[in-house]
Amino acid sequence: MDVQTYLAVLRAEIEAALDAYLPPAAARPARLHAAMRYSIESGGKRLRPVLCLASAEAVGGPCDRAMLPAVALEYLHTYTLIHDDLPAMDNDDLRRGRPTVHKVFGEASAILAGDALLTLAFELLARVAAPPPYPPGQLVAELAAAAGSRGIVGGQFEDLAAEGRAPEAELLAYIHSHKTGQLIRAACRLGAIAAGADAAQLASLTAYGEHIGLAFQIADDVLNVISSPTELGKAVGSDAARKKMTYVALYGLEASRAKARTLMTAAQAALTELGPRAKPLRGLAEYIVARNS
Amino acid sequence: MDVQTYLAVLRAEIEAALDAYLPPAAARPARLHAAMRYSIESGGKRLRPVLCLASAEAVGGPCDRAMLPAVALEYLHTYTLIHDDLPAMDNDDLRRGRPTVHKVFGEASAILAGDALLTLAFELLARVAAPPPYPPGQLVAELAAAAGSRGIVGGQFEDLAAEGRAPEAELLAYIHSHKTGQLIRAACRLGAIAAGADAAQLASLTAYGEHIGLAFQIADDVLNVISSPTELGKAVGSDAARKKMTYVALYGLEASRAKARTLMTAAQAALTELGPRAKPLRGLAEYIVARNS
Repeated sequence: MDVQTYLAVLRAEIEAALDAYLPPAAARPARLHAAMRYSIESGGKRLRPVLCLASAEAVGGPCDRAMLPAVALEYLHTYTLIHDDLPAMDNDDLRRGRPTVHKVFGEASAILAGDALLTLAFELLARVAAPPPYPPGQLVAELAAAAGSRGIVGGQFEDLAAEGRAPEAELLAYIHSHKTGQLIRAACRLGAIAAGADAAQLASLTAYGEHIGLAFQIADDVLNVISSPTELGKAVGSDAARKKMTYVALYGLEASRAKARTLMTAAQAALTELGPRAKPLRGLAEYIVARNS
Repeated sequence: MDVQTYLAVLRAEIEAALDAYLPPAAARPARLHAAMRYSIESGGKRLRPVLCLASAEAVGGPCDRAMLPAVALEYLHTYTLIHDDLPAMDNDDLRRGRPTVHKVFGEASAILAGDALLTLAFELLARVAAPPPYPPGQLVAELAAAAGSRGIVGGQFEDLAAEGRAPEAELLAYIHSHKTGQLIRAACRLGAIAAGADAAQLASLTAYGEHIGLAFQIADDVLNVISSPTELGKAVGSDAARKKMTYVALYGLEASRAKARTLMTAAQAALTELGPRAKPLRGLAEYIVARNS
C-alpha cells in the first residue's frame, strides 16, 4: 500500500471518529457546537491522528486503543488554530480555504469553541488508561505538557513576540519546536504509549517525531513562500508580510529544503529497530517533506 | 474552630500550593508566566479548592491527595475569569480590585495565559489516579465534563447570548448551573473521589455541591446589586447596566435572598449522613450565603 492510499484509509476512520466524539449538533448550546463542528469539519491533513495511529501500529499494539488519543490530538490541534487565527493573535481571515471561525461565528464564540475543544481533548483522553509500565494518567500528562506554557502556548507566545524582530537561530528553534514540534512528537508518543511500547520503541518513535516535527515546520515555511493560495487554502507570502521569523527568512529557500530532506532521512533512520511495521511512518516522513499543501 | 479560622488555615496551604505548581517566573516565556502568576496571585476566596479539601476531609480520606485536584480547580477557575474578562466577552477592566489580565499584558497574552492555565489544570490532575472503585482517569473526566461545552463554556456562551433578552426562568437556571454550578459541584466531587468516597458519601457531597453552587451564584447576583466597589473589587451594578440575566432581575432582591437561605439549609441537610467530619462544609454553606464579597 502506498502512502497516499494508507493516508486515505486512515483518514476515513479518523473523520468518522472526529465526528462521533463531538457533542451532537443539536446539543445545547447548539451555536457553540456548530462552531466546534465547523472548525473540525474544515478538513486538513489529519497528520497528528495519522501519526498517532501509525505509531501504535509500528509497535505492534492494538490500533483501536490509539483512536481516542488520535481524536484528542486533532481536537487540541484545531483549538490552537482557532485561537491563533483570532484578531488579537495572527488575525487570519482564511483557513483551509474557508473563513476562519471568528469570521463566521464571532470572536467570543471562537474563543469559547477553542476552549471547549481543548477541554474535550482531555475529557476523551481521560477514558484511556495508559497500559503498564506507564502510570495510567500518562497520556493526559504528555498531551498537556506538549500543549501548555512550556509547549504550544509558549511557542505561540514567542512567535507573536518575535514578529518584526531580526531572525535569530536560537529563537526560531524555540518557536518551531514549541509551536509545532512538540505536538507532532506527542502524536507519535501517545500512539506508542497507548499501544504499550517498550522503552526502546518509545525512544525510536520520539526521535522520529522530533525529526519530522521540525521537517514539517520547515516545509510549512517553504510552502508559505512558493505555494499558491489555491493549493494552500490561505494567503501565500503572509509570513513575509507579517515579518514572521521563519526558516526561509533565516537560512534561505535552498538551505531550508536541504534541511528538510536531511531531517526526513534522520527520521527514517530512527525507525530501523522497529522493522517492517514502521513502513507507513517511513512513507509519512517523505510525504511531510514533499507535500504541496 | 470557626469557619473564618478554618478558611484562613486552608487558604494558607492552598496559596502555597498554587504558587508551587505554577511554572517558575523565570521559565521561558517569562512574560507569559508572569501573566499566569498575576492572575493566580490576585487572590480571591479560593472557594473551589477549599470545598475540594473540605470534601475530602468529610469522607475521612487523606486530605493531601486532594491538594492537586484543589490546585487544578483554582487554575481552571482562573482561566475562566481571564477569558470572561476579555474585550470580546464581558470586557471587564477590573477584577478583584486590580486591572484585568488583558489590561496589563494585552489581549493575546490574556488568551494564551488562560489557555495555559486550563492546560496546566489537566497536567496536574493527570498525576493523581482516582482510587478504586473509580477508573484512574475519573478526576480528569469529571473536571473536563464540568468545564467543557456542556459545562462552564456552554454557560458562558448562553450568558453572552442572553444579554439584553428578557429574563426567563429556564434559561437563567441553565446559565447559573453551567457557568457556576458545575465547577462548585465538581470541586466537592473531586475532593470526595480523591479521598475514596463510597457511593453514598459521593451522592451526599454531590447534592451539597449542587445546592451551594446555586446559592453562591444567587449571592453573587445579590452582591452585584447591594455591595460597594471597595468590598467587591469590581464595578457594582454592572449586571443591570449590561442587562445580564440574573436571579435578582428575575425574582427580585428579597425572593433571591430567601432562595439562597433555603438552598443553604438544603445543602446542610444533605450532609447529615457524613456526621461531624462535615462540620467545616456546614460552616462553608453559611459563609457562601452571608459573605459580602
